[in-house]
Amino acid sequence: MVIARRIPEATVSRLPLYLRVLGRAAVEGITTISSEVLAERAGVNAAQVRKDLSHLGSYGVRGVGYEVDYLVRQINRKLGLDEDRRIAIIGAGNLGQALASYGGFPERGFHVVAAFDSDPDKVGTSLAGTPVQGISSMVDVLREKRVEIAIITTPASSAQSVADAVVQAGVGSILNFAPATVAVPATVNVRHVDLGVELQVLSFYQQRVARPATPA
Amino acid sequence: MVIARRIPEATVSRLPLYLRVLGRAAVEGITTISSEVLAERAGVNAAQVRKDLSHLGSYGVRGVGYEVDYLVRQINRKLGLDEDRRIAIIGAGNLGQALASYGGFPERGFHVVAAFDSDPDKVGTSLAGTPVQGISSMVDVLREKRVEIAIITTPASSAQSVADAVVQAGVGSILNFAPATVAVPATVNVRHVDLGVELQVLSFYQQRVARPATPA
Repeated sequence: MVIARRIPEATVSRLPLYLRVLGRAAVEGITTISSEVLAERAGVNAAQVRKDLSHLGSYGVRGVGYEVDYLVRQINRKLGLDEDRRIAIIGAGNLGQALASYGGFPERGFHVVAAFDSDPDKVGTSLAGTPVQGISSMVDVLREKRVEIAIITTPASSAQSVADAVVQAGVGSILNFAPATVAVPATVNVRHVDLGVELQVLSFYQQRVARPATPA
Repeated sequence: MVIARRIPEATVSRLPLYLRVLGRAAVEGITTISSEVLAERAGVNAAQVRKDLSHLGSYGVRGVGYEVDYLVRQINRKLGLDEDRRIAIIGAGNLGQALASYGGFPERGFHVVAAFDSDPDKVGTSLAGTPVQGISSMVDVLREKRVEIAIITTPASSAQSVADAVVQAGVGSILNFAPATVAVPATVNVRHVDLGVELQVLSFYQQRVARPATPA
């Protein structure tokens, strides 16, 4: 067993943000970036950026900053994005459809290899090219396809039973979009996405906005 | 003009997470919570929680912690969640449909008052009860309905032109789900939601998961 150097959870959560900022910087032709600029674009402070990146063994060069390409590779490797991941989507409603057709997944190595729904009318249809299968075969198919990450996009009422089946199938990670908490063994990673969080953040800033006079 | 006490952006971003943790705690019948427990459940450290909450003027009681109900009210007020917000969804595809029917919005005071799509086949249909209108009438309708927050769920290629129209209509905040950066005047708040971020975080933890032997 490899003893991995421990990286704080909050740092792990910020790495994808740095990756996005660095990706945009690369598109702009920027080859080196200071912790200040990276911090400003990511919406955190520069000391935090330096501390986060030090967990990757990246310290930058004083007065120059970080080399963009190199840092992207380091973060990708640390996040395991240099490997392909097999994912399944459970719940073929609007959100499942939207995620299955989300362009950003395949380019980052996330491949939808299976899709499921409990609605007999949806079984046999396609989720962006992946056939939708019934729930009864789910545990077997998840095992057979060696799915690593399950995305739950079912109604809240089904989320726990789906999570139980996913865990039974040996899937290591769950991304839960259902508006319900799911309980899983400590060995399984769960992230909960609440689509309302960003609206709540915007609500804060909206309080300070005076609606401008209607422009001509 | 009211001079608001300045709260760091990172603190604002964490307040919805605390709100979610506190909401669950309340359901469990917990009436007071320590910064340690709140921190652990929110995935941050306790010193950060105390610092964040001090920006709200909340300091807790040594050895007791924070009163859950009171803290929820304070955060709600600070985030402006005690007021109703009029939102519009632009892009009536799968993601627009999923967001329009997302149960968590109305209960937090977010009301979808208008929906738009450029596809003539979608105009006249309904987005969870809100009629879908054409893009040509968008600026007028956004003004007339005094929309405060616009949610962009269009393809990347249309995001900037939609954002321009939204700004022209005087909308103060944009939540952008399109996989594209949009440029707006500094007076407009933009939050970008990348549905791939959480998958990237899971990818990190997935690296440490050994697939268990198939259970019997």
